[in-house]
Amino acid sequence: METYEILRDLAIILLSAKIFGMLARKCKAPQVVGQILAGLVIGPCFLGLLRQTEFIAEMAEIGVILIMFSAGLETNLSDLKKSGPKACMIAIAGVFVPFILGALLYLGFYGFTGVGTPNFYAALSIGAIMTATSVSITVAALQELGKLRGEIGTTILSSAIIDDVIGIMVLTFVIGMKSPDSNLLMVILKTVLFFFVAIVGGIITYKLFAILDSKRPHTRRIPIFGFVLCFGLAYIAERYFGIADITGAYTAGIILCSLKDAEYINNKTNISTYMIFAPIFFTGIGLKTSFNAVTPKLLLFCVAFVAVALLSKIIGCGLMAKALKFSWSDSLKIGVGMMTRGEVALIVGGKCLSQGMITSEFFTAVILLIICSSILTPIILKLLFAKEKAPANAEA
Amino acid sequence: METYEILRDLAIILLSAKIFGMLARKCKAPQVVGQILAGLVIGPCFLGLLRQTEFIAEMAEIGVILIMFSAGLETNLSDLKKSGPKACMIAIAGVFVPFILGALLYLGFYGFTGVGTPNFYAALSIGAIMTATSVSITVAALQELGKLRGEIGTTILSSAIIDDVIGIMVLTFVIGMKSPDSNLLMVILKTVLFFFVAIVGGIITYKLFAILDSKRPHTRRIPIFGFVLCFGLAYIAERYFGIADITGAYTAGIILCSLKDAEYINNKTNISTYMIFAPIFFTGIGLKTSFNAVTPKLLLFCVAFVAVALLSKIIGCGLMAKALKFSWSDSLKIGVGMMTRGEVALIVGGKCLSQGMITSEFFTAVILLIICSSILTPIILKLLFAKEKAPANAEA
Repeated sequence: METYEILRDLAIILLSAKIFGMLARKCKAPQVVGQILAGLVIGPCFLGLLRQTEFIAEMAEIGVILIMFSAGLETNLSDLKKSGPKACMIAIAGVFVPFILGALLYLGFYGFTGVGTPNFYAALSIGAIMTATSVSITVAALQELGKLRGEIGTTILSSAIIDDVIGIMVLTFVIGMKSPDSNLLMVILKTVLFFFVAIVGGIITYKLFAILDSKRPHTRRIPIFGFVLCFGLAYIAERYFGIADITGAYTAGIILCSLKDAEYINNKTNISTYMIFAPIFFTGIGLKTSFNAVTPKLLLFCVAFVAVALLSKIIGCGLMAKALKFSWSDSLKIGVGMMTRGEVALIVGGKCLSQGMITSEFFTAVILLIICSSILTPIILKLLFAKEKAPANAEA
Repeated sequence: METYEILRDLAIILLSAKIFGMLARKCKAPQVVGQILAGLVIGPCFLGLLRQTEFIAEMAEIGVILIMFSAGLETNLSDLKKSGPKACMIAIAGVFVPFILGALLYLGFYGFTGVGTPNFYAALSIGAIMTATSVSITVAALQELGKLRGEIGTTILSSAIIDDVIGIMVLTFVIGMKSPDSNLLMVILKTVLFFFVAIVGGIITYKLFAILDSKRPHTRRIPIFGFVLCFGLAYIAERYFGIADITGAYTAGIILCSLKDAEYINNKTNISTYMIFAPIFFTGIGLKTSFNAVTPKLLLFCVAFVAVALLSKIIGCGLMAKALKFSWSDSLKIGVGMMTRGEVALIVGGKCLSQGMITSEFFTAVILLIICSSILTPIILKLLFAKEKAPANAEA
């Protein structure tokens, strides 16, 4: 292939992703849904204008790395500490109930063939995909209702951030287990070692960035060195600790998130991401999705997958909230607020796919989940909040 | 190669490019010189940390496309029309004198083996590399002297912009001639046809963008559709008209340069460029440069190449300025101001290299030219302007 052929792919991807993204927004769905649909339409499923190439896979990889780096950068460590304990408990329940129910759902459909078999890892993958709440959709829904700053809003937001962290740790653990040359003890050891290295190295790195930041705030070198840390840590995580590269990128973001220029770095990251890398990542998912293998059984699985994913969050987070002395009505709101899934579910799914733990047809289920959850959550939240009078802590 | 290996390459390239870029700036040299040196140091020449891969080549390609798109966007069409005729004449002389002298220099060193032989195209390439003045270095030097807005400043700036256009047309023409299945008439026909299509299509595209811009100014879709136009036109130029993809990208920039949001598009383009793509392009040049083939003869050629490149601009532009009724002293200033070379020389060189028209050791000459011209020009200009009293039209 001539090098200039990539320009054609780029033009088609960016154009279709933007147009379908705009259409999705017109239908009140998140833009990412539109971008995935764009991939389905231009890919082998329909028009066949282009197919997945190594270049697209590599650009998509950079895209997902940058998205996770940005998610890390947006973390507010002090807020997290404040709303800490309660949010943490809700997040833990909101990760493990969907993880276990998701895995059981898969085993119920496809049978259990023993610990360590491919079937076992596929079940764990399906569970892992269900874990992470999408912060952005939750935030948008709460903002629209003017409930973002209230107690329920803060709790949901903090829990959603913490459940990203736990969700990624679960993924890290599942992928580590799958690795052929490792036993469970090694996986735990490597994971602990990575986080130890990341914390010690992270503190030193943070200090260096803080010095640079106070001497030369708002200079290009700060976001560029941020990228170096992001790519470097992502590589080190995967290469030397057997931990997903996205975990490394996310950790790099958290290391820098308390920096004065964190928003500046995040801004430069976001522009690079949305101008070129993120559309390739989301469209790439559509390109990889295959409908050839969709059987009635898979279709039934998809419906059950969506139902379990939504209900397990309501059950897990809602009951934990109730146990933490929220009212029944508030507990339900928290549970529903945690239902939304988005990018992280796709990223976890993509990682499991590239590790050969699930096959691409399961993306149909993930895409269906994102569409349903992002349409249902705002509607149900609105109904729940409409039942009560405006509370004292609501925004004007 | 595992996909995550690219993250290592990215981290190394971005880190070394930034550090060497900062060092170069400390030595008053342009950052690109530092970035090229970074490639030499980390590449096979010295440390051998990484080598040119297909991925790096593809990212570098996007980098050069975006740099040329940005150069097009920064064009001010109305300024160009105003200072037009004089600047145009100076630019034409400043393109053809170096082009011819450069080609003759090569033939003088390596002999003439006939029209259409590889040797002939190498000579044309060497000439083409010498044509384009680097606007950015000229502007920086004139700004420092407070002479950017004076008559000489405006003339130099306009000529430098026009000579980019002519230089790229020369390159287009040379590459077109080289193409095995085309005769000279076809090349001219295709070039004319391309610019006809670009002008007609460009006017329509511009109108569409202007409508979008007035309805939704400063929205992400504007720079994203800008990228689509850039990549699309670059591809179409190369694929269907046999014209260099960088010409297509440059044309896309010019189509959008009168848009109200042109600066907004350029800003988003620049961020994506300097955060990731441009460092890969410039470092990639260092990675490709080879010192194994440097013979005493080549070294002598390099020195002669630099001397001819600098003097031919002074002669071409200076004499034309004198013919246009500038004083001898002002004509000399204009000639010296046009001496600087930069990115475009590298881009033209890179294009000739990828077309197999020159071999990589000639990059040594190009790099030497950029270093010498960007150090000498500001010094000589300062001396020339110091000789006279501050003219009335100088800046405060």
